[in-house]
Amino acid sequence: MNTLEKWYSVIKSNDLNDLEDLLADDVVFYSPVVYTPQKGKEITKVYLIAAKKVFGEIKTRDIKSVNKNEGPTFRYIKEIVNGNSALLEFETEVDGIYINGVDLISWDERGKITEFKVIVRPLQAVTALHRIMQAVLKEMK
Amino acid sequence: MNTLEKWYSVIKSNDLNDLEDLLADDVVFYSPVVYTPQKGKEITKVYLIAAKKVFGEIKTRDIKSVNKNEGPTFRYIKEIVNGNSALLEFETEVDGIYINGVDLISWDERGKITEFKVIVRPLQAVTALHRIMQAVLKEMK
Repeated sequence: MNTLEKWYSVIKSNDLNDLEDLLADDVVFYSPVVYTPQKGKEITKVYLIAAKKVFGEIKTRDIKSVNKNEGPTFRYIKEIVNGNSALLEFETEVDGIYINGVDLISWDERGKITEFKVIVRPLQAVTALHRIMQAVLKEMK
Repeated sequence: MNTLEKWYSVIKSNDLNDLEDLLADDVVFYSPVVYTPQKGKEITKVYLIAAKKVFGEIKTRDIKSVNKNEGPTFRYIKEIVNGNSALLEFETEVDGIYINGVDLISWDERGKITEFKVIVRPLQAVTALHRIMQAVLKEMK
């Protein structure tokens, strides 16, 4: 499997070992809300697992695969891949609030993810994610 | 020139005829702030010209070309192109606030832009753009 296939597989599974294997040790995570880059595998895992908690229940209920346009809630709607970088655009709804965003992913020559950036729109989605992610991260501590 | 080259050229120039020529009649603009898609060439031009007003002065002062990493302020830092879609990632600063965002652009077989979506991070950048764009759009009326 290539890096993106592995990422889709991680999203669908609940196996965190897959995530462990997919991230480079020095991966950097960029949040849609906070300016400061989150450096390293441990903190990146925390953020991605938190995101999975926020979106995850919806996914496991409604999505059998993460193919385009499948399921009424979280879905990837566009994929632009070139070399070692990809953009995955998604749409979802959390607490009744529409979220449209992108995962901007880069990986190294071994296929390990070195940068994971999430950006979302509109404003209402950013403020909702801020609120929800803070609650989930607090719960995880 | 292909669509992206034309877009870079529009950004550098102040010639709005170039923009007129580059957009499809039924282009849709998606704002980083507002949910509602803005449909049609006229309203899309209004938003893109407003964005150029917000970022423009910085650009014309600091950027000779829109090459990667050139100039201390507005700059495109990543380009992922595949088929008729492109992601252009940018960084800039407005009123001392750091803005990191993407232009997600799609075009038709004639090279005319059919979709232009802007998404920015972090939260502070979204709220700043909300405030500034409202003021600029009001001025333009």
